[in-house]
Amino acid sequence: MPSAGYSITVRVSVPADASAVGRLTTAVGDAGAIISALDIVDSTTEHVLVDISADTADGEHANQVTNALRALDGVEVRKVSDRTFLLHLGGKLEVTPKVALRNRDELSRAYTPGVARICLAIAENPEDARRLTIKRNTVAVVTDGSAVLGLGNIGPAAALPVMEGKAALFKRFAGVDAWPVVLDTQDTDEIVRIVKAIAPAYGGINLEDIAAPRCFEIEDRLRKELNIPVFHDDQHGTAIVVLAALTNALRVVKKNLSDVRIVVAGAGAAGTAIMKLLLAQGATDIIACDRDGALHAEMAGLNDAMRWLAEHTNPTGFVGDVRGAVRGADVFIGVSAPNILDEADVAAMAPESIVFALANPDPEVDPVAARRHAAVVATGRSDQPNQINNVLAFPGVFRGLLDAQATDWTTPMALAAATAIADAVGPDKINPSVIVPSVFDSSVAPAVAAAIRDVAAAG
Amino acid sequence: MPSAGYSITVRVSVPADASAVGRLTTAVGDAGAIISALDIVDSTTEHVLVDISADTADGEHANQVTNALRALDGVEVRKVSDRTFLLHLGGKLEVTPKVALRNRDELSRAYTPGVARICLAIAENPEDARRLTIKRNTVAVVTDGSAVLGLGNIGPAAALPVMEGKAALFKRFAGVDAWPVVLDTQDTDEIVRIVKAIAPAYGGINLEDIAAPRCFEIEDRLRKELNIPVFHDDQHGTAIVVLAALTNALRVVKKNLSDVRIVVAGAGAAGTAIMKLLLAQGATDIIACDRDGALHAEMAGLNDAMRWLAEHTNPTGFVGDVRGAVRGADVFIGVSAPNILDEADVAAMAPESIVFALANPDPEVDPVAARRHAAVVATGRSDQPNQINNVLAFPGVFRGLLDAQATDWTTPMALAAATAIADAVGPDKINPSVIVPSVFDSSVAPAVAAAIRDVAAAG
Repeated sequence: MPSAGYSITVRVSVPADASAVGRLTTAVGDAGAIISALDIVDSTTEHVLVDISADTADGEHANQVTNALRALDGVEVRKVSDRTFLLHLGGKLEVTPKVALRNRDELSRAYTPGVARICLAIAENPEDARRLTIKRNTVAVVTDGSAVLGLGNIGPAAALPVMEGKAALFKRFAGVDAWPVVLDTQDTDEIVRIVKAIAPAYGGINLEDIAAPRCFEIEDRLRKELNIPVFHDDQHGTAIVVLAALTNALRVVKKNLSDVRIVVAGAGAAGTAIMKLLLAQGATDIIACDRDGALHAEMAGLNDAMRWLAEHTNPTGFVGDVRGAVRGADVFIGVSAPNILDEADVAAMAPESIVFALANPDPEVDPVAARRHAAVVATGRSDQPNQINNVLAFPGVFRGLLDAQATDWTTPMALAAATAIADAVGPDKINPSVIVPSVFDSSVAPAVAAAIRDVAAAG
Repeated sequence: MPSAGYSITVRVSVPADASAVGRLTTAVGDAGAIISALDIVDSTTEHVLVDISADTADGEHANQVTNALRALDGVEVRKVSDRTFLLHLGGKLEVTPKVALRNRDELSRAYTPGVARICLAIAENPEDARRLTIKRNTVAVVTDGSAVLGLGNIGPAAALPVMEGKAALFKRFAGVDAWPVVLDTQDTDEIVRIVKAIAPAYGGINLEDIAAPRCFEIEDRLRKELNIPVFHDDQHGTAIVVLAALTNALRVVKKNLSDVRIVVAGAGAAGTAIMKLLLAQGATDIIACDRDGALHAEMAGLNDAMRWLAEHTNPTGFVGDVRGAVRGADVFIGVSAPNILDEADVAAMAPESIVFALANPDPEVDPVAARRHAAVVATGRSDQPNQINNVLAFPGVFRGLLDAQATDWTTPMALAAATAIADAVGPDKINPSVIVPSVFDSSVAPAVAAAIRDVAAAG
């Protein structure tokens, strides 16, 4: 399927006749690409220079489109640009001074000698750093590059484009200044030491794309040792949006969280956080499935995080694989791997079932097939209804934490954020295809921030 | 002396009569402050609300000025604001996305799924990080807060306002994106490990305000272990500007660097770097003085850095204090402490002597007194001619290093940068009061950057 993430611009020279441009667009369309722009760059009496931009499916498809143009009579391909690469050239962030430095007076206030008084004020009262420095509005987006998107352990340099993008979203959606910290180490102790050492400049830490189970220990230790909130987005951001979506899905099917059987596939960072949050919100019947099937209290060889899950879920003691677990279940939440269920599995769920198949880019079950049996279906994809996207949560969460000068991230904050996101879909709007607000709904981040501030003020 | 670094704005209510505002300005002037602005905020038939801004000398002086206003008949002081503090509120930097995120297509190019292809490209070819991420234009400004300005070991949080200011100068003068990294550790090994770990996001490292001798080891080790340039501004920035200024001062007095006797007071980070650079440029007769007097080869109990100096300077084997050393010397360069010399010491120097008294805010010798005997006098102060200011060097240096994708900082680069700064003062402009360009001379940073690029290309 063609996507804007794989858009190319091809510069071609064509003969200056009436049909030439038409032949271009026909060729691109016939090759299965979607034209997004066509610009005449230059023209003479003999030739016309055209930039034609089109969304393609992948690298091979882009080549096919280019070759289709090349095959046209009299058409010469001059240059093929990948628009995504062009966008990322030179990085996606800049550091901008908020102070003018036009003359000596301004220099002497922003820098020496004036700045010395600001330094002394903070040395005397360290809490003033939250008022007089970037700490007031700045978050570190920290990764070790060990579990980046679906790409795996690609390391810190290759993870940087994602962290820059994340920082851009922080600013775009909540006015938070976020800075990428990509670490060339995957040692737990070292990561903890480094994040503690760099913390004075930041009002919060957003951990990102750090592999489980290391991410749990890093988060726990930092939370204990730092006096600013630490939030692992892959866990808590995902959990918040899943709970928000599930809240509205249950409203659609008129079931209660405390009554439904929920099967969660994937017991890594996201799955664990989702289950903990669902339990905190009142869910009573959750079955956690990993590669080896449903976790249960009798199981051996589990790490600490999984041991906790085995002891706090699966009250009926179900033993078996995920296909068995979903039989008769009300809710399936997948944060695992592609195509672990098929249409028959969804058909075997309880009536009015809910399916969140969040593996990206290929969901746990084909959403089109799932929709033939389930009442509500959600995925992580932007080309399907009900996209579960963390960007609904993290910008507002940190806006609220910074505003409140919060020192900790807490479960009541996560519950409040999920409610704020769910409630952003009005009762008149909610339906099986609209259980979460649009990521561009500008009311979401302020509502989440307000919810976080309220919890912080109450605590 | 009143300074813009200590400027206050006092909001006063005065009776609505013809003389009231005049009485305000007179009172402020009589109290020794310099009025920089006067705004009528509001007026009724009975009262006028006035904001009066004035430069004062320090906190006590600001109180005196405020009290002088309070003492006026019918005048009521409503609020006193410190303009420097107002400027620093909320910090001096923001992180700004360079990409638009207006719709789903833009989101899918800047973030998921499009960003995954950028990640993979860098994973396959790590050098692509210099092209496709912020690494291309971004420098870390790293400190442990151990030697901040003249304030000493005030720690990382209190150092942050300086590092933010430095980052603002980087952007203002050379378009470099710089980010403050303030470290909550003063352990050499730990600092080295942390800077190595965070390095993937940066095209260069600017070490700042780290105490000697720790700074030497940190710099040496990072230089060996990183493939991006490492530059300690307190050393190399200062050395470059001092060499540039000395080059022009020697042009004024028509002496050669290789012939003159130079006395340097202060053998810390700055002094050591200055002497090494002067030696590299051809100076032959340097005497380094510390608290214990001139360093010489027979001296015991020196650390490694001082031992090197003792062995490479003082060819005549002078033994004695700084006052003895400057007797008959052509050049005095002080990066040490206030008032270690008096007027008689300067009078005892060689004819057409040169005095750089760079201790801040109080120089090694009163510059007004020095000017009665020396041909050229420079200080670190902005209220005196010939201000030796690192901002002439570091923005252009890093502009050049980033443009060249340099992997190392080298002495030939420092020499080239100094020449570029010296030559920015045209032969028609150079005189005893103009041996360095203005910090606002917009030709300096590009000239320095070009000089660095040339050296990098040649190397």
